Amino acid sequence: MELLCKPIGKIKSPFKNKFAVPRQAGLIKEIHSKITFNKSYQPSLSLQGLEGFSHVWILWGFHLNNSDNFKAKVSPPRFEGKKQGVFATRSPHRPNPIAMSVVELVDIGPDHIWVKGADLVDKTPILDIKPYIPEYDSIPDARSGWLELVRESIDEVNISMNCKTKFDDYFERIDAQKDFINSDQLIGFLSNLIKEDPRPMQSRDSSKENVKEDFVLDIYNFELFFHIKDRMAEIRDFKLKRGPRAS
Amino acid sequence: MELLCKPIGKIKSPFKNKFAVPRQAGLIKEIHSKITFNKSYQPSLSLQGLEGFSHVWILWGFHLNNSDNFKAKVSPPRFEGKKQGVFATRSPHRPNPIAMSVVELVDIGPDHIWVKGADLVDKTPILDIKPYIPEYDSIPDARSGWLELVRESIDEVNISMNCKTKFDDYFERIDAQKDFINSDQLIGFLSNLIKEDPRPMQSRDSSKENVKEDFVLDIYNFELFFHIKDRMAEIRDFKLKRGPRAS
Repeated sequence: MELLCKPIGKIKSPFKNKFAVPRQAGLIKEIHSKITFNKSYQPSLSLQGLEGFSHVWILWGFHLNNSDNFKAKVSPPRFEGKKQGVFATRSPHRPNPIAMSVVELVDIGPDHIWVKGADLVDKTPILDIKPYIPEYDSIPDARSGWLELVRESIDEVNISMNCKTKFDDYFERIDAQKDFINSDQLIGFLSNLIKEDPRPMQSRDSSKENVKEDFVLDIYNFELFFHIKDRMAEIRDFKLKRGPRAS
Repeated sequence: MELLCKPIGKIKSPFKNKFAVPRQAGLIKEIHSKITFNKSYQPSLSLQGLEGFSHVWILWGFHLNNSDNFKAKVSPPRFEGKKQGVFATRSPHRPNPIAMSVVELVDIGPDHIWVKGADLVDKTPILDIKPYIPEYDSIPDARSGWLELVRESIDEVNISMNCKTKFDDYFERIDAQKDFINSDQLIGFLSNLIKEDPRPMQSRDSSKENVKEDFVLDIYNFELFFHIKDRMAEIRDFKLKRGPRAS
């Protein structure tokens, strides 16, 4: 028995590519995303009754991965290269590339919903929305195995004075006003993303630690440049992208 | 973008068909089920690291439904016929027939896991196993909308003396010893299943309430016969099934 899944809609989120999309829902409570449903699913009817729920599950497809090549063990990025069985992880590289994320439901429109806290890349196809039911879904005292051993990889994130001033000056032109009221809040959030150490495993080689490689975070309508040396990160610069502003 | 899902394994559970499979995880904490993985997914490797987790998510397919015929609104059985938008429910009749259930992880073998609390029909294809991570997944104070208005439909479940005696006499021959230590426990569990009122909507027509229709619950290796009149249910009889005992 095989099962064909079709997208019911698409998400619009500030994360423009996979790099640095947060691995923890807790880090991204601030971020608003909009899910727009295909007309054929009659959202004005099929979303009725959802308004009483504070949270919903999103089922979505890891559309940026090629999952044809099954690997039984994977290296979770926060576990210092140690491998785990794929079913003991939430790795996107799994037999059926389906993800689930619980998010806060903020608003319901005629053909869309607004949610907060989604860890989805912009334009990710959405497969399903289900109400979050605490009676079934919430197990506060569940044990979370090897994840309890994970520690933060970066001790401190700093920002260059130059870059900080630029953020203050340009804040009105950054597409983040729905999520942050000033540049300090935004910088705090970006620092938290970097604190999770989004570098791919191969860039963490300690023999390279003296090389200050620049990483780029593509988010909202700007690019953020930072580097990491030893266990310290520095936000070095940011650049507004050209082209029409996203609405 | 369409996405083809293939089963990674199959579940063996005491629920032999859809009728009366519990709608609440809380009701079925006692029930053990076994998920056996296809060899091609190398379970001896791909399950490594799972042993530290107390709970796992199962993603599975509603294989008994034909979902080609999309309906934007559905009638949740416990909501007295009132309709809700499909995305405000966990109804199996949805655009992508994928379900998620959180269960307790009891044991891990070379090609299988034992879980407790699964609400899956025997032989349901399994699509994925993901660790339950309370830090992401547990929101104890989430609001659950219209579900907060649902009330139990059956006031009382009784059992005929004759049937009770038969349960005591036959308990050793019922395939439920892994889950219950005596017939009283088993009867208590069956009563809870019936208390949820598993009748389809069309059988709840109050004009028919005088007709004592028999319903059959196909579970473990026996069939349970009960009827419901007004808001009272009675367990009338049970019958061991013929054929080889399930192992």
